[in-house]
Amino acid sequence: MKRKLSTTIVATLFVASCFGQNSEIFPHDIPHEKPQYELSAAMNRVYDIYGGETTPQKNELYTQFKYSRIEGFDYNGGDGTVTRREASRVIKANGRYYVWYNLRNTLPLSTKKGEGVDSDNIPDADWNLCDIAYATSTDGFTWHEEGIAIKRPAKPTLGWKTLSTPDILIFKGRYYLYYQAAGAGESSPITVAWADSPDGPWTQLGEPVISYGEPGAWDEHSMHNPQPMLFNGKVYLYYRSNVTTHLTGLAIADNPLGPFVRCSQNPVMNSGHKAQMFRYKNGIAAMAVQDGIEANTIQFSEDGVNFDISSICIRMPTGAGVYDPDAFTDSSSARGITWGIAHVGVWGEKAHTYLLRFDCDLSSEIHDPQLKQGIGIPYTAEELFRHGISPEQRERAINAAAADLDE
Amino acid sequence: MKRKLSTTIVATLFVASCFGQNSEIFPHDIPHEKPQYELSAAMNRVYDIYGGETTPQKNELYTQFKYSRIEGFDYNGGDGTVTRREASRVIKANGRYYVWYNLRNTLPLSTKKGEGVDSDNIPDADWNLCDIAYATSTDGFTWHEEGIAIKRPAKPTLGWKTLSTPDILIFKGRYYLYYQAAGAGESSPITVAWADSPDGPWTQLGEPVISYGEPGAWDEHSMHNPQPMLFNGKVYLYYRSNVTTHLTGLAIADNPLGPFVRCSQNPVMNSGHKAQMFRYKNGIAAMAVQDGIEANTIQFSEDGVNFDISSICIRMPTGAGVYDPDAFTDSSSARGITWGIAHVGVWGEKAHTYLLRFDCDLSSEIHDPQLKQGIGIPYTAEELFRHGISPEQRERAINAAAADLDE
Repeated sequence: MKRKLSTTIVATLFVASCFGQNSEIFPHDIPHEKPQYELSAAMNRVYDIYGGETTPQKNELYTQFKYSRIEGFDYNGGDGTVTRREASRVIKANGRYYVWYNLRNTLPLSTKKGEGVDSDNIPDADWNLCDIAYATSTDGFTWHEEGIAIKRPAKPTLGWKTLSTPDILIFKGRYYLYYQAAGAGESSPITVAWADSPDGPWTQLGEPVISYGEPGAWDEHSMHNPQPMLFNGKVYLYYRSNVTTHLTGLAIADNPLGPFVRCSQNPVMNSGHKAQMFRYKNGIAAMAVQDGIEANTIQFSEDGVNFDISSICIRMPTGAGVYDPDAFTDSSSARGITWGIAHVGVWGEKAHTYLLRFDCDLSSEIHDPQLKQGIGIPYTAEELFRHGISPEQRERAINAAAADLDE
Repeated sequence: MKRKLSTTIVATLFVASCFGQNSEIFPHDIPHEKPQYELSAAMNRVYDIYGGETTPQKNELYTQFKYSRIEGFDYNGGDGTVTRREASRVIKANGRYYVWYNLRNTLPLSTKKGEGVDSDNIPDADWNLCDIAYATSTDGFTWHEEGIAIKRPAKPTLGWKTLSTPDILIFKGRYYLYYQAAGAGESSPITVAWADSPDGPWTQLGEPVISYGEPGAWDEHSMHNPQPMLFNGKVYLYYRSNVTTHLTGLAIADNPLGPFVRCSQNPVMNSGHKAQMFRYKNGIAAMAVQDGIEANTIQFSEDGVNFDISSICIRMPTGAGVYDPDAFTDSSSARGITWGIAHVGVWGEKAHTYLLRFDCDLSSEIHDPQLKQGIGIPYTAEELFRHGISPEQRERAINAAAADLDE
């Protein structure tokens, strides 16, 4: 009784404050400057986070993503024996664009798991038994596979299980290819190879370039998705943890081969599988794709450590590598990105993954209102019904309705 | 030169702070309590906003939305002459569920716009020339259309252009049906009708139940999507402005017929077309669908005025009306929602819109891990390629590549 009374008093006080007199009215033409009178939490965010805009159209870190097929890759008729996935950043060199990726060219995926499966020869996951291959293009739409950059070694050499998630760094004219090199079980450290040309030949470090986190740390056991870039005169290496697949950390070094020192505030991203980073203006932006509480956002950080949400996006690219022209320029006015290479899966008996291209406007180089549309193309009925309830959920709903109406 | 030097100093200081010694390391098992050592901005949000969870699975205001066809409605073979859209909240009465919606039963949509079109008889938009109809169901999947609740009046009576976006309030045993009643041009005030039974007969107020905002205000000219509910002993009426289609305001009254007093902190939601509100625990939750900088979020407010983001969701229901069992109970522990009715459009020559059902877990009444999945079903290639670039965008991209590689 006492509780109820005090609730009523609080409610009355609140109503008096929100519905009192002598307050200014928010105008029809949204003010550029934040009004000085009291605003709701939502309208405070319009000014404190979104620069006074209530639509995403002028948000430089908002975009629609548009997808295109790319030409030039052979998937053996889509029979499940060939997969390309986990594209690296795209770079420009020798008058062409270069991209690296996992290439699986094996028997089809095993439909069985665990004991009795010859997983050394029949892949038990789409990302296993891969080499690092690469391709070049002069327009970004048609690609030519140049061959294998790093070949998976024989057991038990580091990486025998698979080589995966490559990414590239250009540092003082030399090329550094970072990637995961998986062995038995969950073990998958990050290693590196270097070359004077993006066409190789590559010299492999042959051991982890950064150690796992200490036992019990968020990044113990396994590290995925290395992303090197140049920032503040240092090599910034972002990487994803394995067990909590949506946490990203940062380590820095003076040189590409290390030693890498971890940021004491790690993890620096709470979402993304992976969180695709790119240089933007004076800082670093990140696409939080697929996993985690802040999936489907684009975030920004001036220091590369403290990321805040800049926009909420849909249909973000999976397994993306971006063409980030300032990834290695250490510019204080980085341009951002307009395209990249992502991947999409085909499921079922012929399960495999293939590369595709995405275009977007997260760059000062283009201004495309169509790519800034808030709504974009609505979902079709087919897209919605594909996401239907299960028979069990339907039965639960019908039973709940019967009980509810019987009350 | 001076500027560059100071940047270097700042960067060095920063690096020292982030990469210094004697800091604790974030553990593998994510702590329930917020650690006392310095965290990144992203990890601070994990504790300050998301209750110490880095995945959405335990977020009570996160859900996947699953869609089902509903039976019992005749769309004349989908020939474009019949539309049902803009469902009201679903209520329970007389042992059945009730829902109201716009019903268009006309000639097909005009393919021409402007002068020369007989828009009094041929609809120039899918939401014009509608009546308010209603249907009932005992399971929420199969519905029976009971007929017209409020018929569109003859010109020039308020609402002659269309009756639209109905919503329902139960107050002291009486039913109040709020809706837009559109006349010429943009004019579309909110009005109300009442009845002692959800089956009518309805007594129409015949004039706006709340006036437009004053000239120059954010809610001048036109008001859409009335959403009445009972909260803190008052009638809370949320409504959407027309010109800035994603801003939502609040007005309250002691009685359903007013007088309604506007909240001085309006607008209270910066996104959503509409922002579908529902009672949740001791406050009010809102689904920000489709429009605005914070589209694709679910938000929560303890006071009904100050909304903060609770989760980021995808495939949110368009034109949704929810079954909110506590919309009129003024409970301090409202249960939330598990289903509702939304709509989806068919485009082209036979353009029309039809109702469908969605299920979700935004309720303390169910706990369905499948509905809390972070990833859900990935996009298919077909879904992605449907969102392709235009020929002009492709040409721009290819030209940009040629110029870039020529540098």
